[in-house]
Order: sequence, then C-alpha cells, then structure tokens
Amino acid sequence: MVEKWQHVDSEEIGSYRVFKLRKETSVSPRTGNEHAFYVMDSNDWVNIIPLTPEGKVVLIHQYRHGNREVTLEIPGGVIDDDDPSPAAAARRELVEETGYDSDDIVPLGVVTPNPAIINNRCHTFLARNVRRTQKPDFDSSEDIAVELFELTAIPELIRTGKISHALVVAAFYHFDHLREQNPY
Amino acid sequence: MVEKWQHVDSEEIGSYRVFKLRKETSVSPRTGNEHAFYVMDSNDWVNIIPLTPEGKVVLIHQYRHGNREVTLEIPGGVIDDDDPSPAAAARRELVEETGYDSDDIVPLGVVTPNPAIINNRCHTFLARNVRRTQKPDFDSSEDIAVELFELTAIPELIRTGKISHALVVAAFYHFDHLREQNPY
Repeated sequence: MVEKWQHVDSEEIGSYRVFKLRKETSVSPRTGNEHAFYVMDSNDWVNIIPLTPEGKVVLIHQYRHGNREVTLEIPGGVIDDDDPSPAAAARRELVEETGYDSDDIVPLGVVTPNPAIINNRCHTFLARNVRRTQKPDFDSSEDIAVELFELTAIPELIRTGKISHALVVAAFYHFDHLREQNPY
Repeated sequence: MVEKWQHVDSEEIGSYRVFKLRKETSVSPRTGNEHAFYVMDSNDWVNIIPLTPEGKVVLIHQYRHGNREVTLEIPGGVIDDDDPSPAAAARRELVEETGYDSDDIVPLGVVTPNPAIINNRCHTFLARNVRRTQKPDFDSSEDIAVELFELTAIPELIRTGKISHALVVAAFYHFDHLREQNPY
C-alpha cells in the first residue's frame, strides 16, 4: 500500500485573497528522496443546487477570471470564518448570488477540489423548495445573472459543456445518486 | 446578460512547476470599477477511466501533497508540451501510472477544473479493454499502488467519499451519461 510522505518543511510563499501558496518539502517513504511541491491552502468551499417547487434549477451566469469566460454554474463560494457551518455558508451564497432562499437544506456530499495542489474540501448541498425572497446581493467584484432551467435539461447542459465547472458536475453526480436512493 | 470584463493588466507572480500564478487586473462592465484577481495558468490536464474486459475499473492509490492524504483516483495528469493530443497524454498517463494499456480510447467530455482561479481544462477519456502490458513507470516523486474495483462499486465509493477528487467524480458523471446513451 501507499504510505504517507514524511513532511519536513513548509514555507509560505504568499497570500492571494482566496488562497495561500506554500512550498512543501517531503520525503518519499519508498525512495527516501526529498522533493518539493507547491500547494495551496484555502478555507473549505461550498456549492448548492437550488430546486424550485416546480422542479427547476436556479443557475447563475457569472464572469470567471481564471478562464476569462462567462460560465453557467450553481451558487457557491468560500466558507467565511464567521459562517456557523458549511450548510449556513451555502445558504448565504444562495441568497447573495440568486435572491432565492429555502430553509430546507440537505447535504449531498463532500469532494476534494484538487488534492494534488490544494488542501481544502467542497461541501455540496441541495436546497429544496427555494423561492425568490429578495434581490441578489453580490459585491462589486461580481456580475451575476440568474436563469432557471428544467432539472431534466441538466445532463445535456453538462454533456455539451455549457456547464463545465468540475465542482458543479460533481455536485450533480451526488445529487443523481441521492435521487437514485430516494427519488425526489 | 453578463458581459466579459475588460482585461487591463497581467503581472506574473511566479512559476511553480505545474502552474504559474498571475495577478490579473480587470474592469467590471457593470460598475466600471477596477479589481485585482489572482489566477493560475496551467497546461490542460487529462484523466482516464480504465475498464478491463471483465468490467473492472483500474484505480490508483496515490499520496497527494495538497491535502496530505492517500487518495483513490483514476489515472491522470498534465498534458506535456510534446504530447501529440489530449488522448495520447491520457494513454501515456494510463501506462505510466498503472502499467495497463489499450488502443481503444474514447473521449467522454471536457470540464474546467476551477474557472474562478485557473485557466485550464481537463479532458476526460474512457479506455476500453485495458490489459496489463508492463510495470508502472512513475517517477521518484510519485508513489502509486494499483487496485481493481467492480464498475458497480464506483457509486458507493463516491457516495462515501472514498473517491473524493472532483475531477474523478466529474469523469464518472460523463461516463454514466455515455452509458445512458450507449449502454456499454
């Protein structure tokens, strides 16, 4: 079996808003050789699939600076230090980004966004029976437009790459699995 | 609708092996305000679901430095500059990391690992009828152990978090969708 490496040193390179970068030095238990790796630290993330009573999914169009594209996604973001729980953070992002809300929040699963280069996890939720309760409240560094899609349209949106964010695709994997166990 | 931001400046902060970090300055078309974002550049990535003639999936246990855990994943990695295509890169990673090979490589889909903070894409493939042809050939910075699982065991491995890497979960979403259209 594969053993954990022995971690011998960490050096912080810098702090870049949502993540910190560090140089990690570790020793292979197999070869005894020392290697350096560059990895990121971030608070955990959340995302949430908002479902209306009519079976529609509330998605957002959003400009993303990493790939300089307008993407189609579910709401999500970083857990703030003062969020009481991942579920509360997901509900906060839901309200801020879409203006929809629900008190019926169900955990769907937890994934690791990229264990090769970042330390954190992403907690995925389903919000059932969401209703529009207010205007979205995103900050000046965000531009977001809300659009509702039939739940049955999601697989085709993913297959054709219109939804491409891996954390969103992973959320729908967990959602489909929940539905198999407990048809919604 | 949401418009693209006007990109006014990029400043490279550093190069960290598999990614470069840059500070991006852009102007919101909605507010006219200028904002700075930290984003990463990387070559595109690949991953590949290796399926044996008996319907087993070839998975790898691997120590990951980002979260300091031994993970369970499908093979994958970075497309090298001299890889002739994403499919060829995926086949190369398959052979290097598992010792299994196949010339029957099918594209499953393309996802964006995280468009908020990284510019690249991950190309996902299925390798059908893989057979063990050689010993794995991973370098001294990798420790990998191969284990075969029944394809039918995958949903439970994901549901319980034993498979947690979002890019792997997204690969199985695309795989399931291919199977729905064209049962394997």
